[in-house]
Amino acid sequence: MRAEVAEQPAAWSRLLDDRSEVESIAAALAGHPITSVQLLARGTSDHAALHAKYLVETRLGLPAGLMSPSSTTLLGGRPDLRGVAVLAVSQSGGSPDLVSTLALAGELGAITVALTNAADSELARAAQLHVDVQAGPELAVAATKSYTCQLLALTLLCEAWAERRGVSLDPLPVTELPVWGEETLAALGDGLEGEVAARFRYTHRIVLTGRGHSSASAAEAALKLMETSRLSAQAFSGADLLHGPLALLGADVPVVAFVDGGPTGAAMREVLQRVRAQGAEAWIIGHDPGLDTGPVRRRALPDGVPHQLAPMLEIVPAQALALELALLRGHDPDAPEGLAKVTRTL
Amino acid sequence: MRAEVAEQPAAWSRLLDDRSEVESIAAALAGHPITSVQLLARGTSDHAALHAKYLVETRLGLPAGLMSPSSTTLLGGRPDLRGVAVLAVSQSGGSPDLVSTLALAGELGAITVALTNAADSELARAAQLHVDVQAGPELAVAATKSYTCQLLALTLLCEAWAERRGVSLDPLPVTELPVWGEETLAALGDGLEGEVAARFRYTHRIVLTGRGHSSASAAEAALKLMETSRLSAQAFSGADLLHGPLALLGADVPVVAFVDGGPTGAAMREVLQRVRAQGAEAWIIGHDPGLDTGPVRRRALPDGVPHQLAPMLEIVPAQALALELALLRGHDPDAPEGLAKVTRTL
Repeated sequence: MRAEVAEQPAAWSRLLDDRSEVESIAAALAGHPITSVQLLARGTSDHAALHAKYLVETRLGLPAGLMSPSSTTLLGGRPDLRGVAVLAVSQSGGSPDLVSTLALAGELGAITVALTNAADSELARAAQLHVDVQAGPELAVAATKSYTCQLLALTLLCEAWAERRGVSLDPLPVTELPVWGEETLAALGDGLEGEVAARFRYTHRIVLTGRGHSSASAAEAALKLMETSRLSAQAFSGADLLHGPLALLGADVPVVAFVDGGPTGAAMREVLQRVRAQGAEAWIIGHDPGLDTGPVRRRALPDGVPHQLAPMLEIVPAQALALELALLRGHDPDAPEGLAKVTRTL
Repeated sequence: MRAEVAEQPAAWSRLLDDRSEVESIAAALAGHPITSVQLLARGTSDHAALHAKYLVETRLGLPAGLMSPSSTTLLGGRPDLRGVAVLAVSQSGGSPDLVSTLALAGELGAITVALTNAADSELARAAQLHVDVQAGPELAVAATKSYTCQLLALTLLCEAWAERRGVSLDPLPVTELPVWGEETLAALGDGLEGEVAARFRYTHRIVLTGRGHSSASAAEAALKLMETSRLSAQAFSGADLLHGPLALLGADVPVVAFVDGGPTGAAMREVLQRVRAQGAEAWIIGHDPGLDTGPVRRRALPDGVPHQLAPMLEIVPAQALALELALLRGHDPDAPEGLAKVTRTL
């Protein structure tokens, strides 16, 4: 896991250096009269899909949803998917429910795209179009580099597709990402994540929060902590947190908050005020929210990262926290009990 | 909260006795060339929306998604919503982000419907069409009867809309619900939920799971336990649970599983085998999964309930558990610390 976390910027460079696959798929998508997008994914990939949902809504200008595979596989649903682009996201491309749902989506009229880290997988074969996220072999059960490569591949695909749809947008500075990634990794050398792990060592529960794109980071960080450290880690968008779950917070439940540099990051200030009023301390990853969040030092990220690209960087300190906490609590971060690398659900 | 839980079947009868509002809105929706549905909600209402998402996909035959309000309110997204029906669900109809997102959805071409428990609310006024879920005044902060009235109103709306779209379906036996609801409430008299609460009293965390429509029950039960009992209650669809979160289970984390009488309930058997292999005990609400789930007695529900209607009944024992657990742990279930009845997020 530690090695795979460190490989991320190099993996992003591979994707950035040859965008011909993404460009050709964007051209194919732009050639169809698409009216909405459905994302299809589970686990870590579902968090990459959540990031893509925000990109589709804000950059492409199309409505988007996350598909429920059981609607078709178990409950016999046969929705009319003409004019719908279905983007399936999976590291292994091996889960039977995603394969059968994507194949069926094609029969129901959808344009189907698979983004996998396994070009010869069943999911890749079931799709009309395929993007290889090029993370390279990932051996740790907890996905790290495949996740950020999914984020980047989805970002490049949405940006290329938006351009071909004639949407007028300032381009995102994606080519800066490998440098920002190396800066983020280098910053970890100060040992902050080890200090935070020592502080949180005895908790059984933790809450993670962010808004907009950063809500994907909260969800993915929670999954890493569940997988590697047996923590009851709960992720909520900052707004959803205020609709009920806030009640569980107190001095005995630490919070990790992702604060990006955009309007969603600014909206976290009010959320953090409420978190503090419940007596909880918060570890901030990202920007200074402008209020006292407790004694835990903030993990700053490189300057100038737009909120749409923040998920790729802000997850890195969270991956490091999961790793350090697993080791402190006596777990093997590479092979959590009860999990296999490929999850097969029907 | 106890009184409002007990009022549920009577509230359902009100909705069932006069369906003229739902019928007229279904007629209006059927008069438009709708190609997809977006649900807009937060908190408890978001779980009613999840139930509706399955109904839209399986009964109406349309793709569906859950909208992210921050895409439009904070991030400036302006998706093309022509041909989209947006159904906003809110008890109070008062959250500013839902009001502005729904109003904007109308400007972007959507047909907008609000389902609220407050006919004179801002959300009702922002919508082109409005359904009053008729739960009556709800005073406890933790929503109970307004939730099941939302489930029923959404079910009646989808069924009436499907009929007008010419979808050939066996009608759901909705008129049985008040009797099934009274049977479920009467069964609580045996004190099982108090026994389960005593057993779970000292845990800080719990996992809730179900598939398909019952994944809405898991999500809503988790929120009730968070709100009233300060538990880190985590809900996962049975399939998502196997994609990582399974690792956090063990002998020290109890599970509540919703097992409906349909194919999604049958699929829970494999999930429960994996839960048991991790050493956890499970309390089953619903059907017998056909394996040993530990010493906690199952809460059976009335016979003959189709899986599409199970959410209305299976949440009732979970509401009772939340109430009993709150009292045992010294919390006021009617007024959790830090929460207000109307949550205002931007």
